[in-house]
Amino acid sequence: MADCPLCQTSPHDLLWQDDFCRVVLLQDADYPAYCRIELLAHIKEMTDLPPAQRARTMKVVFAVETAIREVIQPDKINLASLGNKTPHLHWHVLPRFEGDRHFPNSHWGAPMRDSEAQPLTEAVRDALQRVVTERVKCALES
Amino acid sequence: MADCPLCQTSPHDLLWQDDFCRVVLLQDADYPAYCRIELLAHIKEMTDLPPAQRARTMKVVFAVETAIREVIQPDKINLASLGNKTPHLHWHVLPRFEGDRHFPNSHWGAPMRDSEAQPLTEAVRDALQRVVTERVKCALES
Repeated sequence: MADCPLCQTSPHDLLWQDDFCRVVLLQDADYPAYCRIELLAHIKEMTDLPPAQRARTMKVVFAVETAIREVIQPDKINLASLGNKTPHLHWHVLPRFEGDRHFPNSHWGAPMRDSEAQPLTEAVRDALQRVVTERVKCALES
Repeated sequence: MADCPLCQTSPHDLLWQDDFCRVVLLQDADYPAYCRIELLAHIKEMTDLPPAQRARTMKVVFAVETAIREVIQPDKINLASLGNKTPHLHWHVLPRFEGDRHFPNSHWGAPMRDSEAQPLTEAVRDALQRVVTERVKCALES
């Protein structure tokens, strides 16, 4: 759809993509390892997908969660698919730390403190891409 | 765990339960059909579960989404598993309407207007329980 930002080429750092979905690193200032899984097709709800594609989507989501946990060891993972503003299926995979800007609130909620987040180093960003790629490949083959 | 509220008997309206998880209606004043899927075991992250149990959890989540869409036809479904305050796996399945209190923001975000939500009628609540039960049973058998 012409007016849907997720139907365009992503402006974000692309970590992995196949013909079904892509994994991007949002380069969020407060949450430097914040990833998003975006379906390529303009589909609104998970239950608009047939069950096999729901399962495929979640395999990618959990592979990204696994990769993030392996590379940066967050205190908690937050998963969400809202789409109120952009009703094109996408999943937020957000590593949380106890000292992050909103913890323990949702990152959509009230801030609790100033952010002390630092951008990912190039080495960590590259490790994240490598491990995401490995974990997604493994998940989709299982 | 003694200090985990989700390790206790639920204070909410129980729609469905098996030996793995339960579905409760939160009776939220702003979001009367807000449901939560709660694992019975005290597990923190989806990727702490083996893949088959992740899939089982998501089948229940999507069955509840299907039931809510069938019974109340929301404008959007929001799915989330955060657990920052209660690190015991649970999924929020939240039907959203364009005129609800926070739309199009997250319901954890800034309110946009006063809520005009009305409690579910007994007939709708009972329909929701019936359809959740049917859809979950069907999903777990497939």
